[in-house]
Amino acid sequence: MSYSLQEIALFLDAKVQGDDLIRVTGLATLQSAGSGDLAFLSNPKYAKQLNNCKALAVILESSQAGDFNGNCLIVDDAYLSYAKISSWFDSAPVETSGFHPSASVDATAKVDCTVFLGPNVVIEAEVCIGAGSVIQANTVIGSRSIIGENCKIAANVSIYHDVRIGSRVTVHSGAVIGADGFGFASKGQQGWQKISQIGGVVIGDDVEIGACTTVDRGALNDTLIGNSVILDNHVQIAHNAIIGDNTAMAAYAGVAGSTTVGKNCVLAAAAHVVGHASLCDNVQVMAHSLVFKDINKPGSYSNAAMPIMTTSEWSKNSVRMGQLNKMAQRLKKIEKNNKD
Amino acid sequence: MSYSLQEIALFLDAKVQGDDLIRVTGLATLQSAGSGDLAFLSNPKYAKQLNNCKALAVILESSQAGDFNGNCLIVDDAYLSYAKISSWFDSAPVETSGFHPSASVDATAKVDCTVFLGPNVVIEAEVCIGAGSVIQANTVIGSRSIIGENCKIAANVSIYHDVRIGSRVTVHSGAVIGADGFGFASKGQQGWQKISQIGGVVIGDDVEIGACTTVDRGALNDTLIGNSVILDNHVQIAHNAIIGDNTAMAAYAGVAGSTTVGKNCVLAAAAHVVGHASLCDNVQVMAHSLVFKDINKPGSYSNAAMPIMTTSEWSKNSVRMGQLNKMAQRLKKIEKNNKD
Amino acid sequence: MSYSLQEIALFLDAKVQGDDLIRVTGLATLQSAGSGDLAFLSNPKYAKQLNNCKALAVILESSQAGDFNGNCLIVDDAYLSYAKISSWFDSAPVETSGFHPSASVDATAKVDCTVFLGPNVVIEAEVCIGAGSVIQANTVIGSRSIIGENCKIAANVSIYHDVRIGSRVTVHSGAVIGADGFGFASKGQQGWQKISQIGGVVIGDDVEIGACTTVDRGALNDTLIGNSVILDNHVQIAHNAIIGDNTAMAAYAGVAGSTTVGKNCVLAAAAHVVGHASLCDNVQVMAHSLVFKDINKPGSYSNAAMPIMTTSEWSKNSVRMGQLNKMAQRLKKIEKNNKD
Repeated sequence: MSYSLQEIALFLDAKVQGDDLIRVTGLATLQSAGSGDLAFLSNPKYAKQLNNCKALAVILESSQAGDFNGNCLIVDDAYLSYAKISSWFDSAPVETSGFHPSASVDATAKVDCTVFLGPNVVIEAEVCIGAGSVIQANTVIGSRSIIGENCKIAANVSIYHDVRIGSRVTVHSGAVIGADGFGFASKGQQGWQKISQIGGVVIGDDVEIGACTTVDRGALNDTLIGNSVILDNHVQIAHNAIIGDNTAMAAYAGVAGSTTVGKNCVLAAAAHVVGHASLCDNVQVMAHSLVFKDINKPGSYSNAAMPIMTTSEWSKNSVRMGQLNKMAQRLKKIEKNNKD
Repeated sequence: MSYSLQEIALFLDAKVQGDDLIRVTGLATLQSAGSGDLAFLSNPKYAKQLNNCKALAVILESSQAGDFNGNCLIVDDAYLSYAKISSWFDSAPVETSGFHPSASVDATAKVDCTVFLGPNVVIEAEVCIGAGSVIQANTVIGSRSIIGENCKIAANVSIYHDVRIGSRVTVHSGAVIGADGFGFASKGQQGWQKISQIGGVVIGDDVEIGACTTVDRGALNDTLIGNSVILDNHVQIAHNAIIGDNTAMAAYAGVAGSTTVGKNCVLAAAAHVVGHASLCDNVQVMAHSLVFKDINKPGSYSNAAMPIMTTSEWSKNSVRMGQLNKMAQRLKKIEKNNKD
Repeated sequence: MSYSLQEIALFLDAKVQGDDLIRVTGLATLQSAGSGDLAFLSNPKYAKQLNNCKALAVILESSQAGDFNGNCLIVDDAYLSYAKISSWFDSAPVETSGFHPSASVDATAKVDCTVFLGPNVVIEAEVCIGAGSVIQANTVIGSRSIIGENCKIAANVSIYHDVRIGSRVTVHSGAVIGADGFGFASKGQQGWQKISQIGGVVIGDDVEIGACTTVDRGALNDTLIGNSVILDNHVQIAHNAIIGDNTAMAAYAGVAGSTTVGKNCVLAAAAHVVGHASLCDNVQVMAHSLVFKDINKPGSYSNAAMPIMTTSEWSKNSVRMGQLNKMAQRLKKIEKNNKD
């Protein structure tokens, strides 16, 4: 594949500085670009790499274009432009329509004829799959579940019954959607009474669900994932959680049961929210933090990241954590005595 | 489906207040119940929702029944009663006996004729599966493993060889039981010598294993999960761990190798116990806590949850954590000087 | 199976004390060994168990041999010797060469004739698999991926396209290699622009990858895992990370995008490194720690483990964490006043 700067500029609504007839054959970072590549400069701290860059052309913003003598595409947002053009250079195999003969498709399922079903895919009763969707090998879709148009469900994904997924949704391998929420009533010393999880899962459009990520079905109502939500790998969405549009959750981030996260929120890696809590829109929770109450004001919150130090230094400091309340009381006593 | 209050009362050993011939058609929360639904009131803080509730009948406890004019089922434990009746309203598809033609069943396996084997299920040599168990699509059960009666193994589960599972056990999709424990001997700069994990896994009756949860096989002895243990998603049970009866572990909770957790314990989300430690019965470990020594006294333990605050406030406080030992010494010095 | 001490001694380069013609039939801990077993003593704290040990023979070091009257194999490193001999006692089923008839192998794939392909394995276009490798049931290997010799890929593993894996690599069930990195450019309130992840994954020789562990493909360059790297279950390696030779990562440990971890490092359970950071060789990060800057000096680092205490004690102490900055200021003020 090769593309002229002209056609890329047209797609990105960019201004070309240099020769717009040259053709680029790959996409790379400034540092690793070869002589045929298109590179991009987004973070100003890498601007000095422009000097030694071997790329044939660079996507950059006007503030960086003045000093640059090479071919470039001048855009408003270089990172977003790189993101938009990246799919042109993706050599991932593209599935064509068709059902592999080893796919098991229930007679009552409605699978659009443009859909790709890989080997050993299992489509249970009354499933609906919209035009252009791709279901890769060994994935299982449970009864009455609905997959919209142009979705990509990777290999070895498990989707339980009564799950509704919008359009242009990507689900990566190992993800599990619609498993039972963790609902049990205590029988004391007699163990646990399982609560049947009779709700479903509803997932909006343009959602990305990472590898080994789990979205549990609701206990009574549905678990809800809004539009344009992006979930990294190993994320956990418990039963009856509601995740607002555009919210991003990094690896190991999770929310417990019946928790609501607003729109445009970010939960960083391993940030967790306890059950029945509510986060308003535009909240960021830092990595490793544990939110155990409602957050009603937009902003960045944390209760986890400490200075990293040698383990021996840390030991000395952390042992004081167990004395902190007493230290506070001692401090107060001194203040009181000094005042007297 | 519809059920009369009379028949539900009989099953739950409940007293009916109102019309016991009415028939409910669904199960819902107080807040979302429609006109044909059965709802329940367990947590007193939702008692005020009784007034506007559209449910046809409500499960509640005698303390709440006096003020309520609607139809209700009076029980000792409303939450437990809701749990018990929930399966009556579960519309999950029910598998009937039978082996899908695409299932691979080794000639030496003993699979009861009442078992359901979904498409592409793989049953290896000498496996035994008891009456009424359901093995869903694309699940693999390794050689010599034993599954008891009335188990439900969901799609895309991996059970290795020599794993013994009791009866009425549910395993959710993506779970892996019997993978090698993480056992290696250091060869210094030459890397690691793998230790063959020659133990197995033994799981009791009435156990629930969540999606993407892993239970490793033992190094020499077996890894043991007691009866009525409930494990949420993304749980990790390392080699040779022993988990006592009725213990519950929430999402991301895990125990390292050779650790023993007693009966009736609760490990909250992302609570971890280091290797070779022992927790007695009736211990609760709060979310995000890291237990690195034995706990010999029942009770609730923690070392993680801090007050959540804005990230800028947090930064100011957490940086002091690195100075805490010095602060303690300075405090002591002042106290000493004041005394002198 | 049974082995004479003589043949074991030859393999381990050990000295036999006692009868070298006796034959052991199993491998066990000192405590659980039966009368035909071989046991081992590595950690001196278990030395007292030698007295009551029923094992037929024991692997131990010369410092322990003097007082011991039983049969023993004297070695330099008892734990390493146990590790080396452990595979002799492994009764895991051994796959023989051959392709199961239900395996789907693309006509353009090059699979060595000594390879084992289990039921429902899917091998996509242009895949190469080297001699002696075993691909277990329901595993999917994407287009153009390369698997070296004598690898063992367990059941239900997902390997995407353009992944290169060395020789003698073990991948456990539920692992996902080559899923998209979590790369998106913000479109503000319009959600997220997906960045095609056009890099691949390169994994060295003698690597172990645990169950439900994920290694994402690179955004532009490849994600790199060195030789002899060992990854436990639920590990996350984000796009463009580089993990140095011999590094070990315990359960839930993870590194974010473009992070470099040196050689011979250890990341304990749930230890995480933020994106674009760099750890030099020989760094240990303690459990639950979060590394958010470069570490340039070998050693052990921590910022997480606190003393475990009852939850009520913890509450009193942790609330002070939110007052710590003010406490520090108050302390300084007292010191200043006392000096004046």
